[in-house]
Amino acid sequence: MNAPLPKHLLPGILQRETPQALIAALKNRFAERCSTALVVREQHGRDESSFAAPPPAAVVFAESTQDVADAVRLAGQYSVPVIPFGVGTSLEGHLLAVQGGISIDVSRMNRVLAINPEDLTVTVQPGVTRRQLNEEIKSTGLFFPIDPGADATLGGMSATRASGTNAVRYGTMRENVLALEVVTASGEIIRTGTRAKKSAAGYDLTRLMVGSEGTLGVITEVTVKLYPLPEAISAAVCSFPSIEAAVRTTIEIIQLGVPIARVELIDAHTVRMVNAHSRLALREEPMLLMEFHGTPNGVKEQAELVQELASGHGGNAFEWASTPEERTRLWTARHNAYFAAIQSKPGCRAISTDTCVPISRLADCLLESVAEAEASGIPYFLVGHVGDGNFHFGYLIDPDNAQERDAAEALNHQLVARALSLEGTCTGEHGIGLGKMDFLLSETGGGAVDMMRAIKRALDPQNIMNPGKIFTL
Amino acid sequence: MNAPLPKHLLPGILQRETPQALIAALKNRFAERCSTALVVREQHGRDESSFAAPPPAAVVFAESTQDVADAVRLAGQYSVPVIPFGVGTSLEGHLLAVQGGISIDVSRMNRVLAINPEDLTVTVQPGVTRRQLNEEIKSTGLFFPIDPGADATLGGMSATRASGTNAVRYGTMRENVLALEVVTASGEIIRTGTRAKKSAAGYDLTRLMVGSEGTLGVITEVTVKLYPLPEAISAAVCSFPSIEAAVRTTIEIIQLGVPIARVELIDAHTVRMVNAHSRLALREEPMLLMEFHGTPNGVKEQAELVQELASGHGGNAFEWASTPEERTRLWTARHNAYFAAIQSKPGCRAISTDTCVPISRLADCLLESVAEAEASGIPYFLVGHVGDGNFHFGYLIDPDNAQERDAAEALNHQLVARALSLEGTCTGEHGIGLGKMDFLLSETGGGAVDMMRAIKRALDPQNIMNPGKIFTL
Repeated sequence: MNAPLPKHLLPGILQRETPQALIAALKNRFAERCSTALVVREQHGRDESSFAAPPPAAVVFAESTQDVADAVRLAGQYSVPVIPFGVGTSLEGHLLAVQGGISIDVSRMNRVLAINPEDLTVTVQPGVTRRQLNEEIKSTGLFFPIDPGADATLGGMSATRASGTNAVRYGTMRENVLALEVVTASGEIIRTGTRAKKSAAGYDLTRLMVGSEGTLGVITEVTVKLYPLPEAISAAVCSFPSIEAAVRTTIEIIQLGVPIARVELIDAHTVRMVNAHSRLALREEPMLLMEFHGTPNGVKEQAELVQELASGHGGNAFEWASTPEERTRLWTARHNAYFAAIQSKPGCRAISTDTCVPISRLADCLLESVAEAEASGIPYFLVGHVGDGNFHFGYLIDPDNAQERDAAEALNHQLVARALSLEGTCTGEHGIGLGKMDFLLSETGGGAVDMMRAIKRALDPQNIMNPGKIFTL
Repeated sequence: MNAPLPKHLLPGILQRETPQALIAALKNRFAERCSTALVVREQHGRDESSFAAPPPAAVVFAESTQDVADAVRLAGQYSVPVIPFGVGTSLEGHLLAVQGGISIDVSRMNRVLAINPEDLTVTVQPGVTRRQLNEEIKSTGLFFPIDPGADATLGGMSATRASGTNAVRYGTMRENVLALEVVTASGEIIRTGTRAKKSAAGYDLTRLMVGSEGTLGVITEVTVKLYPLPEAISAAVCSFPSIEAAVRTTIEIIQLGVPIARVELIDAHTVRMVNAHSRLALREEPMLLMEFHGTPNGVKEQAELVQELASGHGGNAFEWASTPEERTRLWTARHNAYFAAIQSKPGCRAISTDTCVPISRLADCLLESVAEAEASGIPYFLVGHVGDGNFHFGYLIDPDNAQERDAAEALNHQLVARALSLEGTCTGEHGIGLGKMDFLLSETGGGAVDMMRAIKRALDPQNIMNPGKIFTL
């Protein structure tokens, strides 16, 4: 059962009525592809966050850009909110109909439209998931590196500026989306860029849309960069006597400019949960899970240097995952850490944090927050894309226990305050959504949020595009 | 002497009056740091483009963010345009006071504010130039790779989304600016980001400002990424029997994912100009000027692979620039290609093109455009950041010869039309400025430009921030 919305969000909540005339118009246009069945609406009215709100009034299953444009235009005629929906893996309440309205499900828009292997680009519909994409481009010898924990859609990943374990080498959606097709609030279809690798042609609408969380438009097509599969890949696990030792090793890796592809911290609690969930036998100590990409010699050089750095901090000899199967098993276990944690405490939900700090501040930020979490007595998991200075605590709470929730929220507040004081951000990759609006204000100051509001008002004068997210108006 | 503004721009020109009361207020606030001397105004009223306009009514020499904020606020009280000025190296008329107004010269804001070597970041004032920056961070073992031809300021480079020869490996200003401080149209000072490497915190105001050409605010502080100086660097020159052979080699380098740091095409005409200007004796054939960064082994591997690819297309054995001095000499010659070309025809100006296409289309786009340029009889230079699909023709015209100008403009139009038909962009790194507004419309369609206009109106309701650039309102 989901918990009620946190109190500080209540002023933003204004359930707008969805007139029957709109529902009738949608049913007329979309027939059985417009559903008002409660089970369908409820499925589209929740995500992986701990927030809850009444479900949307209807769900439209779009199969084309024109479908999306028509749904937005009809909703606009009645000033009714529209909320894009991919596969529902948001961690920040992005999908919740906090001001009512209709959900536009783009999961059927799941075709890979154009693979251009010679240019290292691919254009997809927004409902294509990251795993599906990598499956479909397998034969080209290329891959798409961005990998949030869930098998999210490319549309959703663009909308939340997602990243994952490969970002330390390959960047985030910010660096990897080349161009978008977007349906605007007026139902117009625009293109934000070309397939050229660079451009200085006017305002960077692509990057304005990437991370706008559905509040400026619905993404209907995504062109992203691909990368040649490295000639050699090797993954290694290294255990450390302390979190600090693992973090200090990571800092040195980055400062030396080692082009490491992945460097993930997993704390001892989480290794234990992962072992239980994925039937692994990893040493239950703080560990770094690493991957090296390059030529065979290059990979060897990187690994030797990193092993040397790790040994200097008491790290063990690397344990290698040398076959693709072993590698997949390890990384799948890492990606399932969230679910492993959730299952470790039946009925719990996770309050996930997402701070990111400059790497020189990472040890301070992490260690103080670990001490606070330990002192609270609340079970937690801790994983980190530590090469980027980004890490996630997940406080495992009973959603019906107000005291636990308050304690977890307090931990998150302290963590964010600490990250901001260390020149970091409240969210590295999950987005603002419902729960971090106040954090965004603290982070940027009111002037920047006022600028965001001015842009929102200009591009969506009726405030129908996923309203009530990122900021209040 | 500068040529008159091209005819198609005339409708956008509306010289607004600058009231004496504003000049008096600026003189009162800035004393001798506000100049109305004609020579100073004229120096701030031109750039490296072939456009001309009456000079600004006054020039304010800002020494702090507060100076900029005060100047903008005063100008706003009289609805008078403000135009930021760094060192005046724009190629697209960005600095021209086409609607009158005052120039805000930030070249005295030239301090490096914070070097954070452990985080690979640096924060500078906008008047710091790229060479100055690299000089000041020399002792850290880090470098800043973005290198437009001119020794431009970081503020100007941010405002035009500049790049250069290293972009193929290190990206452009789009990928390398972490955060900005900006004075908005209302004179408010905002911060667009933190020093965290990743962020999903609200709209990406950093990247909205990067490339906005002064039309949304004045950049007063820039935080950029730095990179560890590679352990090994080697530069090589390789001559080819044809431009096509050089381009096909480049395409293979990129498609194989070789992490080449620089790969620049210089055509035979331009090699001749560069030899004359920089007293070099390069073989006067189409050539690639390349640089490899990495570990000593890594560099060797890359170079061997690229040599093999080049040989397959008739490329000569690489000639190596092995000492830092030889490398600097070569790259300085490359950076001075523009000036070498200008000096090859006394009194001429260059109409510079800046198209960028997906690399699979590069050979087609380039070769047809070379044929057209040859047929026109207009002397030209041709250099290209070909690893990115970006290249520049410079048509060398007598600015007083209307026929030559028309012929050069026609060549540029044909080139842009070709690039757009090949899924490319009209500008890879110079920006839209005055001369490419129609191209931007063709490239993006009206919907995207309307979105840009809506953002501009929302953030600058009086249209005082560098008006008349990128689009007409």
